[in-house]
Amino acid sequence: MNLRKGNLMGVRDDIKVLDATIRDGGLCNNFEFSDEFVSELYKANVRSGIDYMEFGYKASKHMFDESEFGKWKFCNEEDIRAIVGENPSDMKIAVMADVGRCDYKTDFLPKSESVIDMVRVACYIHQIPAAIDMIEHFHTLGYETTCNIMAVSQASSDQLKQALDMLTASSVDVIYLVDSFGSLYPENACELAKVYLAAVEGTDKKIGFHAHNNQNLAFANTIETLSYGVSYLDATMQGMGRGAGNCSLELILGFLKNPKYNIYYILKFIEKYMLALKAQGVVWGYDLQYFFTGLMNCHPREAIAFTNDKRTDYSEFYKTLLDNV
Amino acid sequence: MNLRKGNLMGVRDDIKVLDATIRDGGLCNNFEFSDEFVSELYKANVRSGIDYMEFGYKASKHMFDESEFGKWKFCNEEDIRAIVGENPSDMKIAVMADVGRCDYKTDFLPKSESVIDMVRVACYIHQIPAAIDMIEHFHTLGYETTCNIMAVSQASSDQLKQALDMLTASSVDVIYLVDSFGSLYPENACELAKVYLAAVEGTDKKIGFHAHNNQNLAFANTIETLSYGVSYLDATMQGMGRGAGNCSLELILGFLKNPKYNIYYILKFIEKYMLALKAQGVVWGYDLQYFFTGLMNCHPREAIAFTNDKRTDYSEFYKTLLDNV
Repeated sequence: MNLRKGNLMGVRDDIKVLDATIRDGGLCNNFEFSDEFVSELYKANVRSGIDYMEFGYKASKHMFDESEFGKWKFCNEEDIRAIVGENPSDMKIAVMADVGRCDYKTDFLPKSESVIDMVRVACYIHQIPAAIDMIEHFHTLGYETTCNIMAVSQASSDQLKQALDMLTASSVDVIYLVDSFGSLYPENACELAKVYLAAVEGTDKKIGFHAHNNQNLAFANTIETLSYGVSYLDATMQGMGRGAGNCSLELILGFLKNPKYNIYYILKFIEKYMLALKAQGVVWGYDLQYFFTGLMNCHPREAIAFTNDKRTDYSEFYKTLLDNV
Repeated sequence: MNLRKGNLMGVRDDIKVLDATIRDGGLCNNFEFSDEFVSELYKANVRSGIDYMEFGYKASKHMFDESEFGKWKFCNEEDIRAIVGENPSDMKIAVMADVGRCDYKTDFLPKSESVIDMVRVACYIHQIPAAIDMIEHFHTLGYETTCNIMAVSQASSDQLKQALDMLTASSVDVIYLVDSFGSLYPENACELAKVYLAAVEGTDKKIGFHAHNNQNLAFANTIETLSYGVSYLDATMQGMGRGAGNCSLELILGFLKNPKYNIYYILKFIEKYMLALKAQGVVWGYDLQYFFTGLMNCHPREAIAFTNDKRTDYSEFYKTLLDNV
């Protein structure tokens, strides 16, 4: 378990790259991407050999008003089909379903009637039983499934062990290590990854990694955990994602040696569409306020407010975070 | 040699942090820092417990016209003293001397007459004999010395072994692993660090790491190599340095647990002085063009030109770099 799998010059066929630009990036712009953006992103991902593209959330329309968000917070079947048709490509389509914020019993078609291939169930560690209920439902409908255990850096070792045992006994296909707060260093990200990998050893289940870039470690943690056997890698165009953002898709494609990946179409997309988003004022990426919340292993919401308020008094913000509780 | 030294919660007293903002950052603004900037940087570094501050280069005045650069390309004794006086602090003063671009036999006072503590000799691997000649001279004058072997990612294993053997037999105090092109991943940075560490095992010599951030790995590579025993860590304020820049001093101070370090004064400095530099148009930091040259293990000069020309046609630039030679 302590040995690296493969080497820096080799190809690992088990690696799958998932583009989460619309989903995690949607948290930066209220999911208000133009149809052209999403359509061109789909084409760029297909041409670049990306394995999965996540379109957004399947959020409850009872809990969230459709008029207040872009369509990718809800991922209606017809909206995805308007982009991908019958998806005549090798790339699979994913959506995310949050425990407690999704009407999963009513809002999902059987896989045979849907263009969606994979449902990713996001939960906190105390929600694992609810997540497994969803996973088994999606499995019965015919979907691939993942379980993305968020904020794992705040869970205890005992909790995590129990959660992984329960998931290993479930139908889930992929279990994700999610560094929600960007608080992990490569050294402890790899130690955690080894715990996940050990839990599924001897099964067909895979381990994924979802990084946040609070300490400029999203790419490093992704390639370090993959070197020990993690095989599902989340990334986004230019790292677009909540707060400090995610692992950059372009960096990952630069690193991977599998000839099926081609970075060129990613670069074409970035220079046309991602730079335009930034020019419109959509903000994400590493900055000191996110480093502080990563360092302190806490939710970035105060750092996001600091960003939205266009504050630069980093030292005052840092002092606030140090306040006793 | 394969074991990590210390752990993520511990303090390693052998760690020394060197602020290279004026020296490597000076490559971004022609060394034209105001006296106030340098004076406040000195104070912030002293208050934050930084171990060494590098003031700039001791460049040959025969090869470089003093009127064309800021004063920190030359680091006259009186200019340093105008900032630090007799340097009544625990922080040591460093300057860099490039092989072949420095009049080292005439431009250095004996240590007893100078406020400089350490001379860092930068060289390419074929210049090791010249570097050792300089190192022995500086040693005789009474200075601490380092040898910073640049562009080591382009050297062969045999060359590197010979260079390390020669340096181990010299009077040098610290040998630096320098990732000039930002091409190293944590995995091969650590393998290289182990080669350096093995070369000096059983001696009093130390190993340092100088990162570049072309692939957003400067901080990751720094903390990963330090975990295997590297102890001299170069960093700069907000990563300011040529092209994609260096490891950020604030990230390193967040990582290190030694109570002698205090990040607060670094943050105060950044919010007042570094943001002002950026507002003046001084540019550094990760961008796609630097990622490409890092990936291809080549000098960033074409990427710097791309930046200076304010180009954003990343895909064309990438294609150019792929041209056959």
